[in-house]
Amino acid sequence: MEFGSDNVAGVHPAIFAAMQAANTGPARSYGADPWTERAVARLREIFETDLTAFLVATGTGANALALSAVTPPFGTVFCHREAHINTDECGAPELFTGGAKLTALDGPGCKLTLEALEQARADFVRGFHQQLPAAVSITQATELGQVYEAGEVAGIGAWCRAHGLRLHMDGARFANALVATNASAAELTWKAGVDVLSFGATKNGALAAEAIVFFDAALAEQFRYRLKRGAQVISKGRFLGAQMLAYLEDDLWLSNARHANAMAARLAAGLAGVPGVRLPLAVPANEAFVVLSGALHARLQAAGAHYHLWPGDGAGRLGPDEVLARFVCAFLTTPDEVDGLIAAARG
Amino acid sequence: MEFGSDNVAGVHPAIFAAMQAANTGPARSYGADPWTERAVARLREIFETDLTAFLVATGTGANALALSAVTPPFGTVFCHREAHINTDECGAPELFTGGAKLTALDGPGCKLTLEALEQARADFVRGFHQQLPAAVSITQATELGQVYEAGEVAGIGAWCRAHGLRLHMDGARFANALVATNASAAELTWKAGVDVLSFGATKNGALAAEAIVFFDAALAEQFRYRLKRGAQVISKGRFLGAQMLAYLEDDLWLSNARHANAMAARLAAGLAGVPGVRLPLAVPANEAFVVLSGALHARLQAAGAHYHLWPGDGAGRLGPDEVLARFVCAFLTTPDEVDGLIAAARG
Amino acid sequence: MEFGSDNVAGVHPAIFAAMQAANTGPARSYGADPWTERAVARLREIFETDLTAFLVATGTGANALALSAVTPPFGTVFCHREAHINTDECGAPELFTGGAKLTALDGPGCKLTLEALEQARADFVRGFHQQLPAAVSITQATELGQVYEAGEVAGIGAWCRAHGLRLHMDGARFANALVATNASAAELTWKAGVDVLSFGATKNGALAAEAIVFFDAALAEQFRYRLKRGAQVISKGRFLGAQMLAYLEDDLWLSNARHANAMAARLAAGLAGVPGVRLPLAVPANEAFVVLSGALHARLQAAGAHYHLWPGDGAGRLGPDEVLARFVCAFLTTPDEVDGLIAAARG
Amino acid sequence: MEFGSDNVAGVHPAIFAAMQAANTGPARSYGADPWTERAVARLREIFETDLTAFLVATGTGANALALSAVTPPFGTVFCHREAHINTDECGAPELFTGGAKLTALDGPGCKLTLEALEQARADFVRGFHQQLPAAVSITQATELGQVYEAGEVAGIGAWCRAHGLRLHMDGARFANALVATNASAAELTWKAGVDVLSFGATKNGALAAEAIVFFDAALAEQFRYRLKRGAQVISKGRFLGAQMLAYLEDDLWLSNARHANAMAARLAAGLAGVPGVRLPLAVPANEAFVVLSGALHARLQAAGAHYHLWPGDGAGRLGPDEVLARFVCAFLTTPDEVDGLIAAARG
Repeated sequence: MEFGSDNVAGVHPAIFAAMQAANTGPARSYGADPWTERAVARLREIFETDLTAFLVATGTGANALALSAVTPPFGTVFCHREAHINTDECGAPELFTGGAKLTALDGPGCKLTLEALEQARADFVRGFHQQLPAAVSITQATELGQVYEAGEVAGIGAWCRAHGLRLHMDGARFANALVATNASAAELTWKAGVDVLSFGATKNGALAAEAIVFFDAALAEQFRYRLKRGAQVISKGRFLGAQMLAYLEDDLWLSNARHANAMAARLAAGLAGVPGVRLPLAVPANEAFVVLSGALHARLQAAGAHYHLWPGDGAGRLGPDEVLARFVCAFLTTPDEVDGLIAAARG
Repeated sequence: MEFGSDNVAGVHPAIFAAMQAANTGPARSYGADPWTERAVARLREIFETDLTAFLVATGTGANALALSAVTPPFGTVFCHREAHINTDECGAPELFTGGAKLTALDGPGCKLTLEALEQARADFVRGFHQQLPAAVSITQATELGQVYEAGEVAGIGAWCRAHGLRLHMDGARFANALVATNASAAELTWKAGVDVLSFGATKNGALAAEAIVFFDAALAEQFRYRLKRGAQVISKGRFLGAQMLAYLEDDLWLSNARHANAMAARLAAGLAGVPGVRLPLAVPANEAFVVLSGALHARLQAAGAHYHLWPGDGAGRLGPDEVLARFVCAFLTTPDEVDGLIAAARG
Repeated sequence: MEFGSDNVAGVHPAIFAAMQAANTGPARSYGADPWTERAVARLREIFETDLTAFLVATGTGANALALSAVTPPFGTVFCHREAHINTDECGAPELFTGGAKLTALDGPGCKLTLEALEQARADFVRGFHQQLPAAVSITQATELGQVYEAGEVAGIGAWCRAHGLRLHMDGARFANALVATNASAAELTWKAGVDVLSFGATKNGALAAEAIVFFDAALAEQFRYRLKRGAQVISKGRFLGAQMLAYLEDDLWLSNARHANAMAARLAAGLAGVPGVRLPLAVPANEAFVVLSGALHARLQAAGAHYHLWPGDGAGRLGPDEVLARFVCAFLTTPDEVDGLIAAARG
Repeated sequence: MEFGSDNVAGVHPAIFAAMQAANTGPARSYGADPWTERAVARLREIFETDLTAFLVATGTGANALALSAVTPPFGTVFCHREAHINTDECGAPELFTGGAKLTALDGPGCKLTLEALEQARADFVRGFHQQLPAAVSITQATELGQVYEAGEVAGIGAWCRAHGLRLHMDGARFANALVATNASAAELTWKAGVDVLSFGATKNGALAAEAIVFFDAALAEQFRYRLKRGAQVISKGRFLGAQMLAYLEDDLWLSNARHANAMAARLAAGLAGVPGVRLPLAVPANEAFVVLSGALHARLQAAGAHYHLWPGDGAGRLGPDEVLARFVCAFLTTPDEVDGLIAAARG
């Protein structure tokens, strides 16, 4: 009963097979290989635009480098207080941007609101004594498993345009978010004003592959220099390309995400009526945040369930004997595992 | 009626005269001059310890460099949300520390509380996924004109020691804070656990002179390299030395501070009963934060009074037609100016 | 006839198989998996000491992070002018060290000499006006395919110790260098004064795996923070561990290196007597640097041979119609390929 | 007999008097004062163009910030090996540019040649594996007291334009260089392709004042943010403005420079025939680099002369018993001092 993280999962067999198939003969290094070229072409099809994309091995690298293209070192990026870039990347954004500031905002479900953005902007009125508001970063799906609908992204995108800021989307779980909406990939990103997307594949089946996707080609100029000095260029780049290509071909990325989301929904539905369970948040994607009574938490632990307790309360206002638990479903989570957890919870 | 900032004031005549007197013959450059040596010796007397000190021309330089000595680039510094380092230095701390993060905390009167520090530490539990809590920075007097008593500093100092953090004090208005307490300079700093102090002189009468004072000699090792690469080493350093020496000799720093504080107290007392005035905060040092009704604000502006409206409410919970105003008194503010403002307020 | 780079080669089958075998069930992420643990244990056996090691995916990441542990941001690292860190990493060392300076020195075969180091140190006599000499970095094998014997490393190590500098070794081709000497891994590194080693596996058969090996545990303190903020922590870290483990088990790393070196020697021997060929440098490892006449270069190109022309002359003092060519042999270069090239050269 | 440095001199009386005169009443802080405004207006007159200028207190700050406007963090700046930015600023350029690389070139008299620039560009052919050539920096007068004629600057400027690089001039001794040529300030800078100039005043009579002068307004956009985060904004900025204004008014800067240059010429002429003296370099500005026999050096030292021995040989090919000495004349060097030195040399 493994619900700890989508990072503890291995690699989807189709992706592994594609890497294996790519392991034949010499290939140009540093991203100039045909697999990478085809993967980028596939991204263009999926997003229905002439984007520019670069492949890297880590989500932190994707985020930090993407941000370095949208803020000067004396700028600030507005993001949620619980955003991965703010709490889980140990200052990579600060390093790669040359010292830009992340300004942490609050919002329900780890989503940014226009109100919070307006307030943040109002706090930056000291001219050159303070950093320049340069960009907004939102996470899709959020760190509490919530999803921005296309209209919500578009609202933030319009606000950014109106005030001269750029919009970055941390899409470590972009596939999970996308299939949770009725939007197209284009509608959820560049049509809504997203300038650059960290497009994740690792959590959804790849070994280690993410794409930095620029919808504004101007931002991508000389970006390979940033990639290289950030030590994010894999020499045998064909294996990044092969992963991403297999991930995108035959819509594996979407079917994996649909499966993971379905498993999370099944888990939430199964736990819904169980004594000692409260569900303060919707479960649109592949993560369920559940308030557990101490007794239930103890029972699940004893049953061998693996999941993480989460900081904060997820808006659930924890009682004295309650904890907030995160259950993550991945592309390989089985209905049996989910049902086993539910059964253990029911006791 | 100039109450805009202690930065709009000029230079105290005694300090100017000392600079003039130093302008005679050649002198060793880059801080190796006898004026600087004597100024540092005087700091040792005042702080009653064998400290190490370096002179710079800006408070931002002093703060940013001091912080670079107490946090690694992957560390975080806990400070108040309204701390000067967080809101008025445009990322100098991030630049000079190599990308360390300022974690903004709340607290009344811009003072940090142990509760807020405890909570901050509890938010940094993700190990190497998050920055390392490395230091605390407090401002004395605070950005809302409040003062930490020696015991309060000692409480924070002990907390820092207990958890392996360093303690920095931004003393841009250290003299004003010191004379507001019954403590000695030593009691308010190293005896209370302060590792490094930005000791300000500019706001209190100097032209451009601040000292970075290390109470732990280990932190000062190789620090001149940081000074130089930070472009904070004045070639004709004797003029920094001469300023600081004159500032400290004959206790000019204390008499200037006492005067400025007295003027602020006079101003607060005079405004206290005036209709349209509320004083949400004590006025222990040289800044009075006053809630003004819109009508009174308009009258004062019309009368030619110069002061700044301040972000936030200073805990005064502003009514719909109220503003928060900051009145700063300096070493050269006269009783007549203060009384003139009071008279204008009384209408 | 592929002699372009060891990066154009794919992955050794045993390493690929090990990755596949690791793709089973959940595993702890971010390097806390048992494969990584065993790989580090194996490194301890090989180097016969209680080292600390971290796995990353790129050689540039390994070098830049290793350097960040041995120089302060205001320090300088002495290296060869043609060192990979100086010419092929686009400033990654500068980024990860927070702005330290690489001071480029000359020396035959891309090897540093004690004379060059002495001269470099003599150029840094301006105290805090100049960077602090903090470390030396040598490449093993060098960028011109040369090898430092254990005694040579020890000479540089002793010089570093005498002057308070740290010693880094860029071992992107460490295996190739090691088998070219009679030394043990320990003798070639920590016994000779190396503080930290970038231990490469990618060029010699892995997909993307390098180890940062600290022989001084003090340097490794809090190093995981640097790894994470450098975006060098792979979430599914088991696949780094599995690669490195397979690389080290059964001495695959040594047999791969022996094979590649033998192929390079065969190539050099075969070309030696061919008209239009000069060999200005020894070929102890897996790279042959060959001066070709323009006519021969044209013939080889026409025959479909793939190799790179190299900047500089490799000490061969190029004639007006000569070029310097680099031929790299890898773990999968075959004798037939080598013989084919020789035959093509002979015409 | 003080010939150690123009930094050991004090402040010109007219500049001191101007500072004193500015010390009256309140003035807007952070550079928004009328003195600064007038100083910038005067620079526009002098340079005959609509430039943008910012005042700072140190030459290192001026250089490092100027460079941050002309190179991205992944760029490289070509400069002379002995350039002040390369040898005397402890990495300030690297810090303020976010890690850009200074590529050191050789050239006689510390002057860059087109040949050296061409060679440097030829060494940067590895695309994104290497830093991007972004700018050239030249020093006027050079670190060996030599001067670029307007035509020489224009040659470098044209080369920069042709290859897409920016041109920075370190004019710490710009006045001394200017009066050594027949060119106008405009001809020696923007008309010759200079994009940004560090315009020094400190060495030529100010207390601590330099201007960063942008001839391309696009480079100056948002530059105040860089100034502030670099801790280079003096709060009581009127005193920078007053210094610079006095320096420029009545052409004090030119008369000071003419005097210093004349003193250096007198010194060189007087030493020319003295046994034990060789003059390997012309003395067009205010510094004389003189090869002294050991015996003569000893005699001058015994006579109390103060000057610095200089690294390198100034192209003088030192004999076994010779040293290279630098004699700097300043605005307050007297003919008597010069003649005293000459007399001491003659013995």
